[in-house]
Amino acid sequence: MPDTPLLDAIASPADLRALPESRLKQVAEEVRQDLVEAVSKTGGHLGAGLGVVELTVALHYVFNTPEDRLIWDVGHQAYPHKILTGRRKGMRSIRQENGLSGFAKRAESDYDPFGAGHSSTSISAGLGMAVGRDLSGRRNNVVAVIGDGAMSAGMAYEAMNNAGALDARLIVVLNDNDMSIAPPTGAMSAYLARLVSGKTYRSLRHRAKQITDHLPEFMREGARRTEEFTRGFLTGGTLFEELGFYYVGPIDGHDLDHLLPVLKNVRDATEGPILVHVVTQKGKGYGPAESSADKYHGVSKFDVVTGEQAKAKANAPSYTRVFAQSLIDEARDDDKIVAINAAMPNGTGLDLFGEAFPTRSFDVGIAEQHAVTFAAGLASEGYKPFCAIYSTFLQRAYDQIVHDVAIQSLPVRFAIDRAGFVGADGPTHAGSFDTGFLAPLPGMVVMAAADEAELRHMVRTAVVYDDGPISFRYPRGNGTGVDLPARGQALEIGKGRIVREGSKVAILSFGARLSDALAAADELDSFGLSTTVADARFAKPLDGNLIRQLAQHHEVLVLLEEGASGGFAAQVLEYMARNGLLDHGLKVRPMTMPDSFVEHAAPEAMLQKAGLDKAGIVDCVFRALGESGKRVLQA
Amino acid sequence: MPDTPLLDAIASPADLRALPESRLKQVAEEVRQDLVEAVSKTGGHLGAGLGVVELTVALHYVFNTPEDRLIWDVGHQAYPHKILTGRRKGMRSIRQENGLSGFAKRAESDYDPFGAGHSSTSISAGLGMAVGRDLSGRRNNVVAVIGDGAMSAGMAYEAMNNAGALDARLIVVLNDNDMSIAPPTGAMSAYLARLVSGKTYRSLRHRAKQITDHLPEFMREGARRTEEFTRGFLTGGTLFEELGFYYVGPIDGHDLDHLLPVLKNVRDATEGPILVHVVTQKGKGYGPAESSADKYHGVSKFDVVTGEQAKAKANAPSYTRVFAQSLIDEARDDDKIVAINAAMPNGTGLDLFGEAFPTRSFDVGIAEQHAVTFAAGLASEGYKPFCAIYSTFLQRAYDQIVHDVAIQSLPVRFAIDRAGFVGADGPTHAGSFDTGFLAPLPGMVVMAAADEAELRHMVRTAVVYDDGPISFRYPRGNGTGVDLPARGQALEIGKGRIVREGSKVAILSFGARLSDALAAADELDSFGLSTTVADARFAKPLDGNLIRQLAQHHEVLVLLEEGASGGFAAQVLEYMARNGLLDHGLKVRPMTMPDSFVEHAAPEAMLQKAGLDKAGIVDCVFRALGESGKRVLQA
Repeated sequence: MPDTPLLDAIASPADLRALPESRLKQVAEEVRQDLVEAVSKTGGHLGAGLGVVELTVALHYVFNTPEDRLIWDVGHQAYPHKILTGRRKGMRSIRQENGLSGFAKRAESDYDPFGAGHSSTSISAGLGMAVGRDLSGRRNNVVAVIGDGAMSAGMAYEAMNNAGALDARLIVVLNDNDMSIAPPTGAMSAYLARLVSGKTYRSLRHRAKQITDHLPEFMREGARRTEEFTRGFLTGGTLFEELGFYYVGPIDGHDLDHLLPVLKNVRDATEGPILVHVVTQKGKGYGPAESSADKYHGVSKFDVVTGEQAKAKANAPSYTRVFAQSLIDEARDDDKIVAINAAMPNGTGLDLFGEAFPTRSFDVGIAEQHAVTFAAGLASEGYKPFCAIYSTFLQRAYDQIVHDVAIQSLPVRFAIDRAGFVGADGPTHAGSFDTGFLAPLPGMVVMAAADEAELRHMVRTAVVYDDGPISFRYPRGNGTGVDLPARGQALEIGKGRIVREGSKVAILSFGARLSDALAAADELDSFGLSTTVADARFAKPLDGNLIRQLAQHHEVLVLLEEGASGGFAAQVLEYMARNGLLDHGLKVRPMTMPDSFVEHAAPEAMLQKAGLDKAGIVDCVFRALGESGKRVLQA
Repeated sequence: MPDTPLLDAIASPADLRALPESRLKQVAEEVRQDLVEAVSKTGGHLGAGLGVVELTVALHYVFNTPEDRLIWDVGHQAYPHKILTGRRKGMRSIRQENGLSGFAKRAESDYDPFGAGHSSTSISAGLGMAVGRDLSGRRNNVVAVIGDGAMSAGMAYEAMNNAGALDARLIVVLNDNDMSIAPPTGAMSAYLARLVSGKTYRSLRHRAKQITDHLPEFMREGARRTEEFTRGFLTGGTLFEELGFYYVGPIDGHDLDHLLPVLKNVRDATEGPILVHVVTQKGKGYGPAESSADKYHGVSKFDVVTGEQAKAKANAPSYTRVFAQSLIDEARDDDKIVAINAAMPNGTGLDLFGEAFPTRSFDVGIAEQHAVTFAAGLASEGYKPFCAIYSTFLQRAYDQIVHDVAIQSLPVRFAIDRAGFVGADGPTHAGSFDTGFLAPLPGMVVMAAADEAELRHMVRTAVVYDDGPISFRYPRGNGTGVDLPARGQALEIGKGRIVREGSKVAILSFGARLSDALAAADELDSFGLSTTVADARFAKPLDGNLIRQLAQHHEVLVLLEEGASGGFAAQVLEYMARNGLLDHGLKVRPMTMPDSFVEHAAPEAMLQKAGLDKAGIVDCVFRALGESGKRVLQA
């Protein structure tokens, strides 16, 4: 364990604020060591935290948290913040069951005024808090820390546009590390790079105080109070100022002698919104992170000395990789296939596609709304766009799916990764609602892959199907290890398959819960309950013949999915009700995610908690059978 | 009828392009007269179209539509475009059943490459088309015309950010009329106003060609080709240029001598994205529109000479007005109530709230994502934010509802106007999916108002309930004329009500279809089918006791809602299945919107088409009864 005498004495930011400024550099160093040590044991997000160690120390030193609201945009950045706000011990269980969340979280601490797992929300939330403060006549500060990658999202722009007009006292710290998860794309990123590379920034360290006279009155007062002030920043005609922000920067985010005076001055400012442009280095201060391409954005457990990460044993390829490889195979034969991701080239596997087809691959930034309508534009020109977006982030593009894709019946393909529970990332990243928000859309084809071979078939299906929008969901993690065909075969639209035949109980599964359905069927069979298992493949259009057959020849019908209510089971039940298939006393039981946000844990633990594992299925069947089920169990 | 000799000879833009430039001014004048004449007979969107008459003529004259793609952001602007693209006669039936759509629409014309009812989509779509063109090796132009109001949406920024980075050849015409539906708010709007009010623009008409030398090479070539060129525009360090666009403007959008040379030059440009900033006047050229506050944005039929609009007879107040008045009444007693709208102060009725409480009312611009998280920030500070957004536009904020509101259980109140069919605005504006995307969210309370008195109770309920998010939906148009209580009374959460008691058939209605349910019940009773009617009030939490009672004591149970599948009926069916209420042969029938996008028509016609009116309900019951129903009918 590293030696951390100062940090050991900091139970809360109040203790930090009792220290003289001269000790803060050492505090930062201790936080950094502690962070590396903690994440090396647990895995988690490291690079972003390393980049904001000094910034975090400076913010809690200068601002009176938690009365001053400090909002971290995307919790990746918030690990040092957790260490300094009474959660240091908890860091040893971060992202584990019953442990700390990997993100900022209101329920976890008074120092987390707003949770964030998705990006670019902080300015909106902060503006709401600032307006609330003003209405209440309070005087506290509101500080939102947002990365440059998050600045590519329209939501951040909407918030700035509103903040500039409201002229509310709000401090936005733009943490510019030229990197969100992947290197950022987009014109804003290029613009920030120009600001940073400008002569003005490079000569900062050699400049004197002569710019004071160019500052507006409210800043000049601050400048007079501390001579340090002018060292840290410049002003003048930036894009942010056009949007009504007072722009301060760029300043060196690892130099406390720059950070502290600037933050003190913006704290004491009395006027409208201020943007402080801080330049940091993701992974700063830990060699292996600094030299790694992804700056140790998210890591598994690792050796602190060598930086070597533990590798999970994989018996099967990940769904993500199967998707990417299948699409690459298809794209070799079809030059109309193009691929789009939203700042997730690696997470979606499309980095591989981009290597194979650099002109046909598009990373549009954290901009899901644009991603989908951009894809619709491509589809309108006869291309076959595959939009690969995690289930949880696809929520950001719902209106575009409805309005630009579905109503126009444009053949955009949605590859929905991370569908279902996602383990350590917890409820903010769970892929719960996609089937529910897609299946009601007229003309939308909605598929889910039961295993990685099915995924390959569905990629092929989406290539061949060109009559309208189509989607396929698949889970986080590795496949089941089934044999993979060399190429996928197009499925018949709206046709499921019977995987196992029985006579008393039927399980109709949508997606990757199929393996547990089969295991449950074996167990039910062992009780003498002959069980059919079918893979629906499609939530829309539904396989009416299959449903009818299952309904008419079984006593119990379980509808199984790893998604929230209102999804696959809901579609089947509505279909059955409309067609009179519920009129004759079938015991039909939907099995969905529970009506609560399931906290982070190992995926298996989450499935167990949700009752969606083998045991949960068996239990559901016995409960449906009631008295006769009890007799079977007693026999 | 106005005399329109030139327009009469224009069957398509090719005819327009055959005219000499000198005649275009007259063409524009004839289009304007024709537009006023047509809309005076049908009602519809007038102000936006009047503002772009010259621009539309110039665009079709300079560009080779439809091979050159011309995308109108929000179809409000597209009426003159329709007149010039072979749909002049159809204008007499615009927004009427089987008539033209009020918006651009792919299915309607080859000249509409992309439909748009919601705003701020055009740059994304255009960029997709431009990239598709480049991949195909074609050379056509892509032009997106977007209003300054639409520029407040994050989606437009996301698209510009991507376009600037891709450096694709794309022309964005910013139609700056300082007005979308309401006067725009936001820093971008103020910025545009500064550009337009700048000395440079004001002196435009007096300037000569001396700026040519400051143009980049590709523009200079164009400048050499036509001396007219430099008259029209300026260049220089704007916000748009920081985002990678070449900025041209501002130019006078009503002066063809300015528009034509500039558009020709940008057409012939060979490099990356260009933004042409055109200044227009909404309502231009028609006195009553120019002098009206809303510039005749949307009008009913009117007298061309006086401008006087026909007034619909109303026997009851509109739901919108009841909502606004109820909220004002509540806010008088509770200073924590604040109200948020997204560029719809008039449409949501919150203009009235803003008059009563100017510091507690926020129009954030066309920025639904921000609106919801801004509201969440206010809720986190103890305020009671009412977020009033149409059902269809709330789709834009889905992720924010999930991630920033529901997961954090923040008590944001969602007032969902225009829920259900919306008549003339058609499928792009239908409020179809809200119940389906909200009810699956853990902790969300989901209500629908059966009539305007119920709406008043639900506003009160949302004021009192402070444990988490809550929503209430209500339709477009006027209430049923029931007595309105002076103040609403808070409803018990998750409790429905029986409105009418019977014994054989039960109708469980969610929302404003209740009146037709009651009418259907009368008719069913007259056939001897004793009918219960209940108002569910809540889709979440459901009234389990009520559902159980209806299920156990009736032969048929109809679940009725004016929404898509996956909504209220789906929630009820899942509940019933989980609780074994379907095990005993109840004939349950969901009645939802059909699985297709219902085209615009009168609201009653749409309901009839969807089978959701009285006749549809009666028919559904008889079909559920099968043979016994037939016997009843024969008796």
